[in-house]
Amino acid sequence: MRLRVDLVPQEGLSYADVVLVVDVIRATTTASAFLEAGARELYLTALRESARSFKDHDVVLAGEEGGLRPAGFDYGNSPREALEAAVGGKTVVMSTTNGTKAAHLAARTAKHVLLASLYNAHAAARLAHDLASEEVAVLCAGKEGRIGLDDTYTAGVLAEFLQIMGGYDLEDGALTALATRRTYPDPTEPLHLSAAAQALRQVGLEEDVTFCAQIAASPAVPLLEGRVGEALIFRRGQRNGSQSQIPTL
Amino acid sequence: MRLRVDLVPQEGLSYADVVLVVDVIRATTTASAFLEAGARELYLTALRESARSFKDHDVVLAGEEGGLRPAGFDYGNSPREALEAAVGGKTVVMSTTNGTKAAHLAARTAKHVLLASLYNAHAAARLAHDLASEEVAVLCAGKEGRIGLDDTYTAGVLAEFLQIMGGYDLEDGALTALATRRTYPDPTEPLHLSAAAQALRQVGLEEDVTFCAQIAASPAVPLLEGRVGEALIFRRGQRNGSQSQIPTL
Repeated sequence: MRLRVDLVPQEGLSYADVVLVVDVIRATTTASAFLEAGARELYLTALRESARSFKDHDVVLAGEEGGLRPAGFDYGNSPREALEAAVGGKTVVMSTTNGTKAAHLAARTAKHVLLASLYNAHAAARLAHDLASEEVAVLCAGKEGRIGLDDTYTAGVLAEFLQIMGGYDLEDGALTALATRRTYPDPTEPLHLSAAAQALRQVGLEEDVTFCAQIAASPAVPLLEGRVGEALIFRRGQRNGSQSQIPTL
Repeated sequence: MRLRVDLVPQEGLSYADVVLVVDVIRATTTASAFLEAGARELYLTALRESARSFKDHDVVLAGEEGGLRPAGFDYGNSPREALEAAVGGKTVVMSTTNGTKAAHLAARTAKHVLLASLYNAHAAARLAHDLASEEVAVLCAGKEGRIGLDDTYTAGVLAEFLQIMGGYDLEDGALTALATRRTYPDPTEPLHLSAAAQALRQVGLEEDVTFCAQIAASPAVPLLEGRVGEALIFRRGQRNGSQSQIPTL
């Protein structure tokens, strides 16, 4: 089995099998937190206007604009807030910047797309390992086309869990992510050093970074199960389940 | 002063000041070796046909195609061969894959472009530090659009030298490169693990990897000094010199 890590999304990347999309500060952490809070499903849309178009349905809108809740949205992109949100049995429409774009890039070609973070790292690695037949890829969202230390570090944690589970051939990106993981034993350090954390600090949301630095605290792994229009539909992935390839709704 | 590391070339990247282009296995190592061997200047061209068009001039052609010397070329892309080459006072026209492309990308916007490797790491970092007024960027060539462990590691070595020389603000890419450097005290390990080394092994050129793993053995730093047609002209950079911004010939 191959383990591949792409540290920054690029047009033209294509995936053969399973992709773990990582935007640890904060989209993929928040996605797990909404599932933990009981959300039935998540719609990921790259466009805020597209998110607003769901507003006449019985959905909850969550997202960010410069780190903050956009006008007309019910929630921001805070995992602390998501965990306490009244979303039991509901559809949450999420629109974030980097994480959503990376998920859409992965969904173009991958057989299975999962949203991974430190928060659900163990469960996400486990599910990816179960679903994969030839390759597990980690696609880091980065920040506006640049590599993120936070996402690279998270990819290293996922790579470490995957290595424990089975024999993986590691390519250069995976070795780099593992090196980053090994350099920082305490996850709060690389997360707080990252550009993503600096941006949150400027809008007073530094506590979210501390939340995002928890490793393997949640078993909730968002798994791509279909599409509705431009939005990707994620539901909670089950181990040993009968998840099939992505249907188009 | 800012220190920035881009681990993979991407369309749209732009540079404000000094760029160290790294393709350690092998283009930027070989470029230094040709200068060590006495070459007067290097022309870097992305196209082999464009290299061949110089053939009626009194030049030496060097380059690679699948790791090997292309038909009609005088030399391959081997630094061991370059160091022994009869190029005293001559122009060497180099055409390689990833390194040449990265140099052209940097040259679009940067004020100063240098070719860096482990082989010339100390001299390259020193010259970059002298030339920079606001930012030193390291642009890793990678391999066919993917991150290279060898180039990431080299960026970490350059970052380490730069940090010793002055106060740099490090962004996420630089922190990742430094983490990779710290994980591998012995440079031969990450270089031999890289995809670039694996490709050379398949064509029997593994000894080149060992050559490329020497740290700071050469003071020869190729510095962009102009263009002729599509080719970039590099000459040996001098410290405390009067290098100006890139003229267009």
